[in-house]
Amino acid sequence: MQNFEFFNPVNIVFGQGQIKKLGQLVPTGTKIMLAYGGGSIFKNGVYDQVKSALPGLELTEFGGIEPNPRYETLMKAVEVVKNEKIGFILAVGGGSVLDGVKFIAAAALWTEGDPWNFLTNRKLVVTRAVPLGSVMTLPATGSEMNGNSVVTRLSTQEKLAFNADAVLPVFSILDPTVVFSLPEKQVANGIVDAFVHVMEQYLTYPVDSPIQDRFAESILVTLIEEGPKVLVNRNDYNAAANFMWAATMALNGLIGAGVPQDWATHTIGHELTAFHGIDHARTLAIVLPGIMQVKRVGKREKLLQFGERVWGVKSGSNDARIDEAILRTVAFFESFGIPTKLSAYNIGPDFIPVICNRFTNRGIKGIGEKGDLTIEQVSEVLTLQL
Amino acid sequence: MQNFEFFNPVNIVFGQGQIKKLGQLVPTGTKIMLAYGGGSIFKNGVYDQVKSALPGLELTEFGGIEPNPRYETLMKAVEVVKNEKIGFILAVGGGSVLDGVKFIAAAALWTEGDPWNFLTNRKLVVTRAVPLGSVMTLPATGSEMNGNSVVTRLSTQEKLAFNADAVLPVFSILDPTVVFSLPEKQVANGIVDAFVHVMEQYLTYPVDSPIQDRFAESILVTLIEEGPKVLVNRNDYNAAANFMWAATMALNGLIGAGVPQDWATHTIGHELTAFHGIDHARTLAIVLPGIMQVKRVGKREKLLQFGERVWGVKSGSNDARIDEAILRTVAFFESFGIPTKLSAYNIGPDFIPVICNRFTNRGIKGIGEKGDLTIEQVSEVLTLQL
Repeated sequence: MQNFEFFNPVNIVFGQGQIKKLGQLVPTGTKIMLAYGGGSIFKNGVYDQVKSALPGLELTEFGGIEPNPRYETLMKAVEVVKNEKIGFILAVGGGSVLDGVKFIAAAALWTEGDPWNFLTNRKLVVTRAVPLGSVMTLPATGSEMNGNSVVTRLSTQEKLAFNADAVLPVFSILDPTVVFSLPEKQVANGIVDAFVHVMEQYLTYPVDSPIQDRFAESILVTLIEEGPKVLVNRNDYNAAANFMWAATMALNGLIGAGVPQDWATHTIGHELTAFHGIDHARTLAIVLPGIMQVKRVGKREKLLQFGERVWGVKSGSNDARIDEAILRTVAFFESFGIPTKLSAYNIGPDFIPVICNRFTNRGIKGIGEKGDLTIEQVSEVLTLQL
Repeated sequence: MQNFEFFNPVNIVFGQGQIKKLGQLVPTGTKIMLAYGGGSIFKNGVYDQVKSALPGLELTEFGGIEPNPRYETLMKAVEVVKNEKIGFILAVGGGSVLDGVKFIAAAALWTEGDPWNFLTNRKLVVTRAVPLGSVMTLPATGSEMNGNSVVTRLSTQEKLAFNADAVLPVFSILDPTVVFSLPEKQVANGIVDAFVHVMEQYLTYPVDSPIQDRFAESILVTLIEEGPKVLVNRNDYNAAANFMWAATMALNGLIGAGVPQDWATHTIGHELTAFHGIDHARTLAIVLPGIMQVKRVGKREKLLQFGERVWGVKSGSNDARIDEAILRTVAFFESFGIPTKLSAYNIGPDFIPVICNRFTNRGIKGIGEKGDLTIEQVSEVLTLQL
C-alpha cells in the first residue's frame, strides 16, 4: 500500500424522506442560495420538498445550471453570491449542479484574478469557498461526497477540473426515490459513470492493497447486479438505494486511498465532451475499452484480477482472459444502450489528431497511472474505438 | 437498505514516516497534553518520533493510561486538563489510550455532575469535548476513526461505553511500522477485535445492502489472509499496513451504515473483562461462537452467506454449512492461540448467573440486532462456551 491521507467530512443523510431534515442541516443566520439545473426538480417534486423543508426561509434562487456546467453561466451566479452576500449555497440536482456550485462557491471568494485560472493552473490552490450542501437527484458522479468539480468553457471549448477540500459539501442528502422518475438514459449514464470511476482507481498495477481492491470490486459487482434492476423497474427502492450508494462510494476518495490512480479515460473523455458534446459517461464507455486494450501489458495483473473477481473469468490463457474481461465490460455497457464506438456519434478518424494536438500543445507527454500512455497511444486508443 | 446518517471527519494520515507531519497537524496557540499508556512508546521509538516532530513545543505529559482505561485514572487527567487549560490532547498509543483520551476530553468540559453519568445514562449526550488527535500504535479497536470510547470503573466493576461526534479525533496518524515491535499476543488480540467488530455489523439479517455486506466480507477476508502473515513476520510492512487499515475500516461507521447491528458479543464480553480482567478481544472470541450457535435460526441467511463468501463453504445442508462456518471461525481464532472457551480462564458455570443478574438488574430484557437474545439465551451462550 502507498502512503495516503484520507479526509472526508461530508455528512451523508441517506434514505427515503430525508429531505425533511434540511431545516436542521442548513445554517441559520445567513443568506442561502438555492441552485439547480434545467428544472427536473420541479417535475419530480424535489423542489417542493426542499421548499417545504425550509419554511419561512428566503432563498435566492439560481436555476439553469447546464449538464457539463458552463463557466459563462456559473460566473453569473458568482455575481449574485457576491452582490447578495450569500453565506451558504444549497445545490439541488445531479453532478453537474454540484460541480457548478463548487465552482461558484470557490470563485465567489477568489481574489487572484479570473477564477478560470484555478482550473487551468494546477499550482493555484482553492483554500476558501462559500459553504455548500446538496440534495442529490442523480446517482452518477459522486460529487455529493468529494471535492471535485469539472467545468466547461464554451468560448475555448475546454472542459477542466479542480479539486479542493474547501468545496466538500457540508452535507449531502441522498434520497433514492429521486431515481424513480429518472429517464432511462440518465440511469444508464450513471451506471457507466460510477463503474468507470472505480476502474480509474482500480485498474492500474498491484501495490498489495487487498482492502482497496476488494472494496472496488464490491462496487463494480453491485453496479453490475443492481444497475439492470433499476433500468427494468425504476420503482425498485432497494435497487435504487444500492445504485445510489455505489455511485457515491465510487468516488469519495476511499477506494483510491493508498493506491495508484489512472484517470486517462477521463482525460481523453473530457475532450470528446468538449469538442462533440457527448455525455460525460458515454465518452468513458468509448475510451475505457480502448485503454484496456492498449495497456494490456502494463495493466496485466489487474486486468486478470478484474476478469476473475468481477466477471468470473478464470480459465484460458492470460491473453484470452484479458480479451474476455474487455468483451464482458463492453457487453455490459452496450446491454443498456451505451455505445462504445465513436462511429455511433459519427466521429471519424480526422478528429483524432485534433485531440492529440491539444494534449501536445498543453505540454502533456503521457497520461495514466505511470504517465506512460503516450500521445501516440492516445491516438491508438481512439483508433481502436472508431 | 435502512436509512442512515454517516459522518466521519477524521483526517487519516497513513503510512511509514507520517509521524513527521505532526507539526502541521496539531493546532498552534494552545496548550497540548500528550497522553499515553504504560510506556511501550518509549521502547518502540514512537515517543521520540513524536517529540522530534514537535520541536520547541511544551507538552504536558500524562502517562499511565491502562488497558481497559480506568475512570479513576482518567479523572486525574481531567483535573490536569482543567487546571492547565489544555486546548488539545494528543493520544499516543492503542485503543485504550484513545478511548481514555476521549473520556478525558469530554469529561473536562462536562458541567452536569459526575462525568460517569454520561456512561451510565444513555439520555445524556456529550456535545462538547477538548479537540483531540492520535498517533495510533496498535491496530485493533478502530478508535482512531470513530467516536466510541469504553471506560472501566474499578470501584463498581463496570465497563461502559459512550459515543459522540464531539470526540472524533481531528486527525489520526497510522504508521504501520509500529506493528514491527508488537508482542504476538497484541497482534492476535487485534486481529480478533477487528474481526468481531465486522461481525457485529454484518452477522444479523439481510436488508438488501450489497455494498455494506461485501465491504464487511472484504475486511474479514483481508484479516484472515493478512493477520497470519503479520504473526509470522512482524516486519512484513505490507501485511502490517493491510492489517492496520482493516482494523480501522472495521469500526469507522462505514460498514454499519444502513444495516442492522448486533453488539451482543461485546455486551457480554465487557462483563467478562469487568469481572475477570480478560483482554477485550479474548472475551469476544469466547462469546461470538456461542452467539452464532444460539442465534443460528435468527441469523441463518447471514450465517450461510458468511460461510460461503468468507470461508468458501458452499455444499451440504444449511445446518451443516452453518456448523462449518462456526468451526472455521473458532479454528481461525485458536490457530493463533486465542482460546474460545471459558475453561481456558478457569471460569466455571457458577459465574454465569452473576452476569445474567447484572443484565436483569439493569432492566435489560434482550440484546442483539432485534433485542431478542434473552437473558436465558445469554446463559445458554455462556454455557456452550464453558
